[in-house]
Amino acid sequence: MENVIHKRNGVNVDQLMQTIDLVKEDPEIAKFQFRAETEWLGGGHCKTKIKDFYGAKTEDSSRSRAFEIEGDEPPVLLGENNGANAVEALLHALASCLTVGFIYNAAAKGINVESLNFQMKGDLDLHAFLGLSESKRPGYEKIIVKYKVKSDAPKEQLKELCDYVQKTSPVLDMLRNPVPVEIEMI
Amino acid sequence: MENVIHKRNGVNVDQLMQTIDLVKEDPEIAKFQFRAETEWLGGGHCKTKIKDFYGAKTEDSSRSRAFEIEGDEPPVLLGENNGANAVEALLHALASCLTVGFIYNAAAKGINVESLNFQMKGDLDLHAFLGLSESKRPGYEKIIVKYKVKSDAPKEQLKELCDYVQKTSPVLDMLRNPVPVEIEMI
Repeated sequence: MENVIHKRNGVNVDQLMQTIDLVKEDPEIAKFQFRAETEWLGGGHCKTKIKDFYGAKTEDSSRSRAFEIEGDEPPVLLGENNGANAVEALLHALASCLTVGFIYNAAAKGINVESLNFQMKGDLDLHAFLGLSESKRPGYEKIIVKYKVKSDAPKEQLKELCDYVQKTSPVLDMLRNPVPVEIEMI
Repeated sequence: MENVIHKRNGVNVDQLMQTIDLVKEDPEIAKFQFRAETEWLGGGHCKTKIKDFYGAKTEDSSRSRAFEIEGDEPPVLLGENNGANAVEALLHALASCLTVGFIYNAAAKGINVESLNFQMKGDLDLHAFLGLSESKRPGYEKIIVKYKVKSDAPKEQLKELCDYVQKTSPVLDMLRNPVPVEIEMI
């Protein structure tokens, strides 16, 4: 699965190694700021635009237009199904993060991955959101991630990789450990 | 902004009040399970499908097809810009959650909202993701949310509403407080 520019799992391994070396030389390169703008469209419906970010000491200009993600609730939660809801979008964010972590680290370690799938589940009790409980939490009580990977690497090596990915995944870190969130009305 | 079915801010207020009453009568109605399936498509690119969920004591059947959200990285992070990345998707999830919380609670309290916008920013240092630091965290060091609301309600009332939303937002709860995440290879 390697070709002349040393891609493994679709990842340019040379660029990955070069990035690590550059960050070692100049820690400022590792500082990123990501952004999103969200507009309410009525009821539970909103649209988020995602385009610019800062990183590697510069404002990124690689995206010609913004990605758009719509959010809404299903009818049972008073919405009109214009998009996945917020806690479903969170499951996507987590799975997307684990995917990148798994694939990039597999590439770096010389592991070829043929396929990778995640089944995500989150259990949530609405009492707190509805203002009916101070003891129940508003968010998921538990998230269960099951993943299936096809690879010629031994299962033990894949499990080690998964353990490593769990230590270094940005979204998983933000779920397992508190993140400071400042909210200000302007 | 009220009409015959008592919609405020596009939210069916009668249905909202009825939902609260039903949950008070039967706590089981409040139990939901949300789900997502994510497939790796090569490099940093994945696609998440979101459709079914369990809630209000039944499997939902309101969605005729799955919502799809694609994730990828920009070129500087070895991707091809097929979608927003995981930590950007997380900003969407948070803003979408705050939107629903703000709008639904405004509707319940009789506050008319004309417009609502969120500007989201998250600062992240790549050292941990790249395996170059044990002391830096992989996730955002800080998330900053700025929101602008147009409403005929007094600013003080809107700020109180925002404080209440912060206490009851599922995604904000999951960022500010640890969530158990179980990860299993199948």
